[in-house]
Amino acid sequence: MVEVFSTSYRVAWVDTDAAGVVHFTNFFRMFERAEEDFYLSLGFSFKDIAERYGVWFPRVEAFCRYKSPAYFGDLLTIKLRIMELGEKHVKYRFRVMRKEELLAEGYVVVVAAEKERNVSTRIPDDVKMKLQPYVSER
Amino acid sequence: MVEVFSTSYRVAWVDTDAAGVVHFTNFFRMFERAEEDFYLSLGFSFKDIAERYGVWFPRVEAFCRYKSPAYFGDLLTIKLRIMELGEKHVKYRFRVMRKEELLAEGYVVVVAAEKERNVSTRIPDDVKMKLQPYVSER
Amino acid sequence: MVEVFSTSYRVAWVDTDAAGVVHFTNFFRMFERAEEDFYLSLGFSFKDIAERYGVWFPRVEAFCRYKSPAYFGDLLTIKLRIMELGEKHVKYRFRVMRKEELLAEGYVVVVAAEKERNVSTRIPDDVKMKLQPYVSER
Amino acid sequence: MVEVFSTSYRVAWVDTDAAGVVHFTNFFRMFERAEEDFYLSLGFSFKDIAERYGVWFPRVEAFCRYKSPAYFGDLLTIKLRIMELGEKHVKYRFRVMRKEELLAEGYVVVVAAEKERNVSTRIPDDVKMKLQPYVSER
Repeated sequence: MVEVFSTSYRVAWVDTDAAGVVHFTNFFRMFERAEEDFYLSLGFSFKDIAERYGVWFPRVEAFCRYKSPAYFGDLLTIKLRIMELGEKHVKYRFRVMRKEELLAEGYVVVVAAEKERNVSTRIPDDVKMKLQPYVSER
Repeated sequence: MVEVFSTSYRVAWVDTDAAGVVHFTNFFRMFERAEEDFYLSLGFSFKDIAERYGVWFPRVEAFCRYKSPAYFGDLLTIKLRIMELGEKHVKYRFRVMRKEELLAEGYVVVVAAEKERNVSTRIPDDVKMKLQPYVSER
Repeated sequence: MVEVFSTSYRVAWVDTDAAGVVHFTNFFRMFERAEEDFYLSLGFSFKDIAERYGVWFPRVEAFCRYKSPAYFGDLLTIKLRIMELGEKHVKYRFRVMRKEELLAEGYVVVVAAEKERNVSTRIPDDVKMKLQPYVSER
Repeated sequence: MVEVFSTSYRVAWVDTDAAGVVHFTNFFRMFERAEEDFYLSLGFSFKDIAERYGVWFPRVEAFCRYKSPAYFGDLLTIKLRIMELGEKHVKYRFRVMRKEELLAEGYVVVVAAEKERNVSTRIPDDVKMKLQPYVSER
């Protein structure tokens, strides 16, 4: 049974643009917000991992497909699954929903990197173990 | 001979994050900035097209691959080419360079849409004609 | 007895800058976020007022004094009171706290404006009535 | 004779909000952009000062008064003067113009701080000397 993490986000006025809809870049902010909330739900944060292991997770790829606009005041749900969990990288999949409607979906690939030397490294074992239940190949 | 449009961007303090590098979402802002400068170089703007033809260009896909970080104060060059120019859509390709070094590359697909009814429509002919020289299949 | 509205905000990675702290402009985003949450708590939104009365609330002044930095992951409380409630304007006061520590405080003055003609107008009566309990002269 | 530093800024689509105008927080981004361009014109940057002297300039106050909206595509001029140049602080004054029309004006107070200990310190002498010609009491 694959776990899916879900968090909610209320669209702010500042997220909109002159077309009256959420600016496309702000979906990537939502993806990152979901990733942050996901980590918190697992009991740690980017900062903890950086401090404990000297490791952080620069983004190496980001993609979004836009289906339908989001508007000011919308209460959105962002769903996160893990599509790939490698030795050194994680590929997160995101879906942004308004009730049952899919507004946008995409992914972000992050790579574990040694903070000091800025070279890729293995994902710390206990982080990896906590991510495992969210891995889904579909 | 394929044209490539080039514009420059100086990284602002607000573009950076606590890792000391440009936040990944801001590369998508640079892509859009390049698209805006490109349009200006052709003699029109999003606003002109919206007013003249009742057409605008919502984004339907956005992708970026990150190679190397950008830092506060960097003078970047953003290069724009057109990878696909359809009846109704444009696929722009972007490269973000610091001198000769490629920092990030990606694409954005936009679709012409009737502003009032929000349905896809043909790209206005004179817009399409001006985009044509920038189309490259590579 | 004066009411104070309170809402919480978790600092996102994108809110930080290369100094490792929340960028000063993002406190103004928090102010607006608090205003939006406040309106929701009263049962309406900017959008509702715009649609029902053809009135919206452009900002005419914004001020913030920064006492102490906020960091990634901080759970902040934003407190809102109303310092002035005029015929046509509202002056909101905001305090951003991390537990008992005041990080920043400031105000925003908004003016009711007719959406179509963009001239100042009276705040709709039922909006004003709902704001009244939050007015404090201190 | 008092010097005024001037820089220009083209309003981007992402700067606008659903009211069709530049979001109020983005004027503070313009202020900072002007400050960065100003420093560059003097031959240094925030980063240089941080590296050379271990000093940076956290903001302690920010204010803006909004007169008239700015729109997508507007070519704005941002004018910077120095209202106060103390031992440890600088108060910058900004005006955002569209041709001859004043759209917004405000100020930002920054304080020199030791990067390592985060306590206020004297502005380095050669920085101060370069700022001097821009000081105006009006």
